[in-house]
Amino acid sequence: MKNIVIGQAGGPTSVMNATLAGLTEALMEENSLTFLKQGYEGLSQNRFLNDDSYVLDWILSHKNIPGACLGSGRYALDGVKLEACADNLKRLNADALVVIGGNGTMEALRKIEQKTMERNYQLQVIGLPKTVDNDLGCTDHAPGFASAANYIARATLDMGRDLYAMKNFEQVRILETMGRNTGWLAAASGLFKAYEEDGPHFIAIPEQKLVKQDLLKSVEASVNKYGCALIVTSEGVQWDSGSQMNRKVINGRPVLGGISAGIEAEIQKELGFTSRSELLGMNQRSASALVTETDREEAYQAGAAGGKWVKAGLTDMMAAFQRSDDAHYHINIEPVSLKAVADYGERQMPEQFSSDLSAYYNWLKPLVDNKMVSYPSLAPRRENDGKREL
Amino acid sequence: MKNIVIGQAGGPTSVMNATLAGLTEALMEENSLTFLKQGYEGLSQNRFLNDDSYVLDWILSHKNIPGACLGSGRYALDGVKLEACADNLKRLNADALVVIGGNGTMEALRKIEQKTMERNYQLQVIGLPKTVDNDLGCTDHAPGFASAANYIARATLDMGRDLYAMKNFEQVRILETMGRNTGWLAAASGLFKAYEEDGPHFIAIPEQKLVKQDLLKSVEASVNKYGCALIVTSEGVQWDSGSQMNRKVINGRPVLGGISAGIEAEIQKELGFTSRSELLGMNQRSASALVTETDREEAYQAGAAGGKWVKAGLTDMMAAFQRSDDAHYHINIEPVSLKAVADYGERQMPEQFSSDLSAYYNWLKPLVDNKMVSYPSLAPRRENDGKREL
Repeated sequence: MKNIVIGQAGGPTSVMNATLAGLTEALMEENSLTFLKQGYEGLSQNRFLNDDSYVLDWILSHKNIPGACLGSGRYALDGVKLEACADNLKRLNADALVVIGGNGTMEALRKIEQKTMERNYQLQVIGLPKTVDNDLGCTDHAPGFASAANYIARATLDMGRDLYAMKNFEQVRILETMGRNTGWLAAASGLFKAYEEDGPHFIAIPEQKLVKQDLLKSVEASVNKYGCALIVTSEGVQWDSGSQMNRKVINGRPVLGGISAGIEAEIQKELGFTSRSELLGMNQRSASALVTETDREEAYQAGAAGGKWVKAGLTDMMAAFQRSDDAHYHINIEPVSLKAVADYGERQMPEQFSSDLSAYYNWLKPLVDNKMVSYPSLAPRRENDGKREL
Repeated sequence: MKNIVIGQAGGPTSVMNATLAGLTEALMEENSLTFLKQGYEGLSQNRFLNDDSYVLDWILSHKNIPGACLGSGRYALDGVKLEACADNLKRLNADALVVIGGNGTMEALRKIEQKTMERNYQLQVIGLPKTVDNDLGCTDHAPGFASAANYIARATLDMGRDLYAMKNFEQVRILETMGRNTGWLAAASGLFKAYEEDGPHFIAIPEQKLVKQDLLKSVEASVNKYGCALIVTSEGVQWDSGSQMNRKVINGRPVLGGISAGIEAEIQKELGFTSRSELLGMNQRSASALVTETDREEAYQAGAAGGKWVKAGLTDMMAAFQRSDDAHYHINIEPVSLKAVADYGERQMPEQFSSDLSAYYNWLKPLVDNKMVSYPSLAPRRENDGKREL
C-alpha cells in the first residue's frame, strides 16, 4: 500500500482522461490516492481530491470524455512553489507522484524529484505522456496526437469540398492548425487527400521557414488549375524573411496564432484572390466525435503501465511507445528516463516524413484505426479519356 | 419526358448533396437532365454538365458527402444576367428549373420565372430548401440546419471541458457561430448542457441587441462561481449601443465575424479575465462526422419530393417541412409558393424559444436523432450533501 499523488497538467487532449482512468484503475484497490486539482498549482497550493468512492467513480466515468477532469492548465514552478510542492508531498507522506502531461510536465517532475532528494526524502516520480503536437521525444508518438490528427485530416477534407463549391466567391482558404514547433498536425491535413485537385494544395510546417515566393507560386498554380487553393499551416510557422509576427502574450506565455492571417493578407495583396484564414481552434484537441479507438486505448494503456510501474518501484520514468516492426501495427509501452526525454527536447517532424508525405501517412494510418475516409473525385472522370471538368 | 435543369446555390451544407441525389434519382430515368455548374453563374454563362452515366453515377456517389458537388457559391443576378439565364433555358428547351438553395435562391427563381413569362415561355420552377442558419420561412426547418446545430452543441460541450481544465490559465472563451440574422444555431449550443456549471453560460443571438452590462454581469458571476465562463454568440449579434462593427466586405457582400473579438476585448478590459474568442468556422456547415441521420434523410426526401412535383407539373413552389402534432416526430413535405416564402422574409427565432431554451431543445431533439450526448458532472457530487468542489 502506497500513498500516490496523481495529477494532469498542460493543455488537455481528448484522451487525457483515459490515461487517468487507466492509472486510477490500476492503483485504486491497494493504495491510497490523492488527486491534484489543476496539476502543479494544486500541488503547491494544497488543493486535492481524496479517493472516496464518489471521486473514484467520477474519475472512471470520464474515460471517454475530453478535457482533463482534475483540471490541468499552465503553472510555472519557480523556487518557492517547488519548495511548497516538496513540502506538501512530504506532508501527504507521498510515496509516488504521477503526472500526465507533455514536455513541461516531465521537466517539472524532474525538478520536484531533485527537490525531494535534497531533503533525503524518497519519492517515485512517473510521467505519463500526452500531447496533441506530438513533440515528446523518446516515443513513437503520444496519446492525444492521433485524434487531433484525425480531426484535422477530416476537417481539411470536408472544408475542401466547401471551398470548391464556393470558388466563384472566394478562391483561397488558409487553415491554421496547432503545432507550436512541429508540423505533425499540419502535415496530417492531407491524410485523406486522394486527388490532386483536392486540398490541401500547400502545407507549411515550423520545421521549414515559409518562403513567400514559393507560397504565392503554388497558390497561383492551384487557383489556375482548380479554381481554388486550400492552404494548411501550423501556428508556429515563420516567414523566412525573419520578421517575427507580433505575438500576443497571455500570462507570460506567447500565444501563437496569426500566421494564417498574415498569409491571407499576402495572397490578397500579391495575387488579388479573395482569401479567408481560419484557426481550427480548441476543437482540435477536444472533439469527442473524432477520437480514434487506437488513441483512446493507447492512452488508457499508458495509464495502466504507469500504475504497474508505481507498484514495481520504478522512478524517474516516462511511459514511451515503441512500435513493433511487424507488418501489423503493435505498440509496446516501455519506461524511458525523464532525463532522456528532457535531453531529447522538442521532437520535430523528421525529414523522411516532411519530404515524403506518403511515408508519413503510412506511419499515421494505424493511429486513425486504418479508417481512411474516401470521397468521390471533385469532378466526374470518364473511363477512357481521364478528363475532368473542373 | 421533360428537359430539366438542376443547380445548387448559396453556401453549401453537409447534406445539400443528399437533396441533389434525391432529386436526381427521382428524375433520371424518364427525363433529360442538365446540371448547372456554380448555380446561377453556370446558368447565365452556359456552364453545364450533361446527364451521361458517368455524371449521374458521380452525382449519386455524393449523397453522403458535404459541400455542393455541382458548385454553388454566390452570384448576384442583375438584369443582363437574368436575360442570359432566360435565353439559355430557352435554348436548352428547358421545361423545368430546380435549384437547391436558401432565401436568395428562392428570390432568384421567382425572377427567372418572371423573365420567362414575359417571353411567353412556360417554365416550371421549383426550389429545394437548404440553410444552416434556419432562416427560411414557411417550413418547420430546412436541411443543413440540424447537422450544423448538432456540430455546435457537441463542440460547445467538448470545448467547455477544455476550458474548465484550463481555467487557471484563461477564464473566458467566446465561441462565434454562424447565423447572420437568426440565433437558431447559437442557441443550439446549449442542447447537451446538463449542469449549471457547464457551458454555455451566456448566449447572444441577433434577435436581441447585446447589452454590455448584462454580459459583463453574467460573465463575472460565472467566473466567480465556476472559475470560468463560456460564451456563445451568433456572428450577426450587435451591441445595443448601436455602434456597428466594422465589417469586411468581400465581393460586395459584408462578411460578418468580429463580434466575438469585440466581446473578448470588452471582457479583458472591464473584468481583466484572460479571454479568447474563436470562430467555429466552415466546419459548422461541412463537418461530415456530425451529420444527423434525420437531416440527411430529410434532405434526400426534399429532393425526391421536388422530383415528384416536377413530373406532376407544379411550379413556383418550394418544398416545406410540416411537423406532425403526434408524440412521435414526423415530417410531411408539402409545396408552398415561392411568393409566400419571399413574403415571409428571414425567419427569426420565435420568442417562445429564445425565452425558454428547454422548449427550443425539445423541438430540436428529434432533428439530432434524439441522441443527447451526456457527460458526467464537472465536479464529483456526493449523494447526500449535493456539494460540488468546483
